[in-house]
Amino acid sequence: MAHTIAEIATALGAQALGDVSLRVSGAAEPQAAGPEQLALAMTPSYGDALKLGRARAAVIWPEADWQAMGLEAAIMAPLARLAMARLTQMLDDRGRMAPGVHPSAVVDPTARIAPDAAIGPLCVIGAGARIGAGTQLASQVTVAAGAEIGAACLILAGVRIGLRVRIGERVILQPNVTIGGDGFSFVTAAESNVERARASLGEARLSPPEDATWHRIHSLGGVEIGDDVEIGANSTVDAGTIRPTRVGRGTKVDNLVQVGHNVRIGEDCLLCAQSGVAGSTIVGNRVVLGGQAGFADNIRIGDDVVIGASSAVLSNVPAGRIMMGAPATSMAAHLASYKALRRLPRLMRDIMASKKPVPKPGLSD
Amino acid sequence: MAHTIAEIATALGAQALGDVSLRVSGAAEPQAAGPEQLALAMTPSYGDALKLGRARAAVIWPEADWQAMGLEAAIMAPLARLAMARLTQMLDDRGRMAPGVHPSAVVDPTARIAPDAAIGPLCVIGAGARIGAGTQLASQVTVAAGAEIGAACLILAGVRIGLRVRIGERVILQPNVTIGGDGFSFVTAAESNVERARASLGEARLSPPEDATWHRIHSLGGVEIGDDVEIGANSTVDAGTIRPTRVGRGTKVDNLVQVGHNVRIGEDCLLCAQSGVAGSTIVGNRVVLGGQAGFADNIRIGDDVVIGASSAVLSNVPAGRIMMGAPATSMAAHLASYKALRRLPRLMRDIMASKKPVPKPGLSD
Amino acid sequence: MAHTIAEIATALGAQALGDVSLRVSGAAEPQAAGPEQLALAMTPSYGDALKLGRARAAVIWPEADWQAMGLEAAIMAPLARLAMARLTQMLDDRGRMAPGVHPSAVVDPTARIAPDAAIGPLCVIGAGARIGAGTQLASQVTVAAGAEIGAACLILAGVRIGLRVRIGERVILQPNVTIGGDGFSFVTAAESNVERARASLGEARLSPPEDATWHRIHSLGGVEIGDDVEIGANSTVDAGTIRPTRVGRGTKVDNLVQVGHNVRIGEDCLLCAQSGVAGSTIVGNRVVLGGQAGFADNIRIGDDVVIGASSAVLSNVPAGRIMMGAPATSMAAHLASYKALRRLPRLMRDIMASKKPVPKPGLSD
Repeated sequence: MAHTIAEIATALGAQALGDVSLRVSGAAEPQAAGPEQLALAMTPSYGDALKLGRARAAVIWPEADWQAMGLEAAIMAPLARLAMARLTQMLDDRGRMAPGVHPSAVVDPTARIAPDAAIGPLCVIGAGARIGAGTQLASQVTVAAGAEIGAACLILAGVRIGLRVRIGERVILQPNVTIGGDGFSFVTAAESNVERARASLGEARLSPPEDATWHRIHSLGGVEIGDDVEIGANSTVDAGTIRPTRVGRGTKVDNLVQVGHNVRIGEDCLLCAQSGVAGSTIVGNRVVLGGQAGFADNIRIGDDVVIGASSAVLSNVPAGRIMMGAPATSMAAHLASYKALRRLPRLMRDIMASKKPVPKPGLSD
Repeated sequence: MAHTIAEIATALGAQALGDVSLRVSGAAEPQAAGPEQLALAMTPSYGDALKLGRARAAVIWPEADWQAMGLEAAIMAPLARLAMARLTQMLDDRGRMAPGVHPSAVVDPTARIAPDAAIGPLCVIGAGARIGAGTQLASQVTVAAGAEIGAACLILAGVRIGLRVRIGERVILQPNVTIGGDGFSFVTAAESNVERARASLGEARLSPPEDATWHRIHSLGGVEIGDDVEIGANSTVDAGTIRPTRVGRGTKVDNLVQVGHNVRIGEDCLLCAQSGVAGSTIVGNRVVLGGQAGFADNIRIGDDVVIGASSAVLSNVPAGRIMMGAPATSMAAHLASYKALRRLPRLMRDIMASKKPVPKPGLSD
Repeated sequence: MAHTIAEIATALGAQALGDVSLRVSGAAEPQAAGPEQLALAMTPSYGDALKLGRARAAVIWPEADWQAMGLEAAIMAPLARLAMARLTQMLDDRGRMAPGVHPSAVVDPTARIAPDAAIGPLCVIGAGARIGAGTQLASQVTVAAGAEIGAACLILAGVRIGLRVRIGERVILQPNVTIGGDGFSFVTAAESNVERARASLGEARLSPPEDATWHRIHSLGGVEIGDDVEIGANSTVDAGTIRPTRVGRGTKVDNLVQVGHNVRIGEDCLLCAQSGVAGSTIVGNRVVLGGQAGFADNIRIGDDVVIGASSAVLSNVPAGRIMMGAPATSMAAHLASYKALRRLPRLMRDIMASKKPVPKPGLSD
């Protein structure tokens, strides 16, 4: 997997200097780089660190005197925003799995597996499931009967793919992801405490309902994951009730994220770690949901909405809005309230301390 | 798994109309329904959608002119709250696994497995474990030595059941659930930063304690899961210290939920996605914990309490209360504070803008 | 695994009384204890409970009249803070796995496994991986090619250990943990909605960017887990970009916790359940992060910081601070604001009710 400095520079559209035939096999921070690694020193702040490491080549900032730093070769840092993406892709040495089915995998004879797909050790693939061309299943993956996985996917260890799940092309599922678990959908014969709380706007004093037994609404709708989606470790996407839960093309989902039943998420969204989307909510395109933030159930989020970390969105959001807080409001309103709240204790102290208690009803005239 | 319209109507206690011998094999939204699916069009708002789909039969709203919509058969939507539960249960085509132990499973010879239980591929079952009648373990499940699973349970792929765990009857565990991991219980020889923070009510400036090493309190108490409990994908229930952590009969737990060590949760509760119950907290019956909400450790929550999404409950809650916020208060108080907070920036601006700064101590007389 | 009362007392540095040769095989709460269990009744409040149980021996509070309670033997409760840790460790009967590789495990011939390590059923170990002396891998664990696990570790069922992960000694990983999943690191060719939201401090109205495609920055840096770390069930630690994500010696991580790429966590920290640390954040030593709390990305947290449950820390925190809220401030400031907020609705009502609306700009003189 080693590359020459010339090859890397070409891939980045950058200029190579010095011994461009030098080979490197990975990237590292300047101070930690060994002689076979490419140091990444894209700003002058890394100058001193370069001297501590043992790199022979580096990606350097424009106008850096790379020879004076003892480097044998250098790549002038390109300004392109995509440089890190291209560089790390090039240096990624995760080998491709050899095509074929590992003998320890348990594969139903009716499953259709593309000839160049790779099925790792101890995977289980159910009847009628389909695995697309070039797709790799690492070890111990489960694919339920009838599930479909498109071409060129990477499904890592311990992923569970349930009934009626369809996955597009070039999808990456990190370890221990669960796609197609049953939705959290239950109903009581009598009005439940949740319904009474909502109906009373929180004013009710709740007492035991007549019949508190939760009856299960089964999930028959499955899940559809679009092309180029990535889902982080230990995240969950539940099956829909009678239509599929959907995650749109190009959307990226971080670790420990929950996507509830019947949810539809648009294209090119980001769902940061530990965020959640409750059942039946519809999310537009290019929406960003911050870490530990959540969308309530049964709401609509427009395109190009950004939600700050740790926020709770409880109602519809029009397109283009930036929201924060729990419950979330516009970021501007939230910050104004937050600043005022910080000053509120002093205001209250002042009011309490004033001899003539101001304001006080009926006192002023 | 196909059913006639007559059969479905009977199961729902509803009226069947037209060609009641027509068979359907699943349900779908009206616009997406194929000729072998039952369209669900329970309100007039679905009228137009029905025309877009290809359903030959539908569940329709009362008084709908089903023949004019081109349907060959119809079921008059029953008003019963449980209709969706019954309907989806009837149409669920998740096949039962064939009884017996898959040859790839690794089962200790001293494990006691009911003759009609089904143990899927690549499961691991430890010494002395018991699996009840009719229970199904999907693939790659782990059951520790001595653990007990009752009758008629459904344990999905990748579930981990630890030491000293006892699971009741008709329990459903979604994929990658962990029951009986060790509790998060550690103690330091000297007073820890947590203890000093609590003792000073947050006023202390913390400095390195004499000995910061965390010593592990082992979890010997296991877990008890009651009958008819369901636990969502990738959720975790920790073992108790010397008594079992308990989840009561009929309680439903969503995905990515944490139940800490020594916790006792009552019957017929709902714990929504990404909520958490910290160690040793006691939760009553019919309690609803909203998504991403949490109960602190060592508190008591009465029966029939409802907690809004994203709330943090830090102290005891009496029975029947509806609570919101972080820290949570009554929903009424929370909403009043929230509304006032939204208006606070304007109030502060007004105060700042007023020539005579009001209120200001010692100025008014 | 049974111990005599004398042995237990010696281990605890406590005094044994009565028939000190009596054997017990576990601990229990007083009311639930059977005749072979040691009742834990360390305070007088347990006196009545002891009478309900069937214990023959108990750990009792100083000066308890153990003979009058019908006990045959007793251990005087030591005041040492570590008593529960020692006692539960002694009574923990989790057997050690027999050394060797289970025949169902799939182990690459180039993996180096210490002779006395134990590799459980259906584990998968990649090329060149190393497993240290005395380390136990329970069932269905995955160890990627080249990953290294030190001596005396306990790796429970379903744990996934990725590429370039190095784990120290005496590390415990609870079930379904994922170490070394890819970081959540993506970049767009054009400025993204997230960048525009931040640049405008939330004032922008967002519209579709020119090119919303997320390009993946690959994770080449792996993970380093220090000695004596424990990580709870279903938690995730992502790989770094070009340097390892690090969790320092002695740090304890609860269930469902997220540690993002490039993060460095110091020594002897506690990360409580469902907390999260976003990418590239640096956390000091002895830091406590409460349940469901989070650190934003790219910030620095000093040593000896304690963060309350459900808080969101959005900026740097100096050493020694106790913080709460979302966004987090000092606990003292947070509590003051919170109290004031609770009283704000009444203040606003009073202002509205006063005939002369006070304060109102330009009205008072």
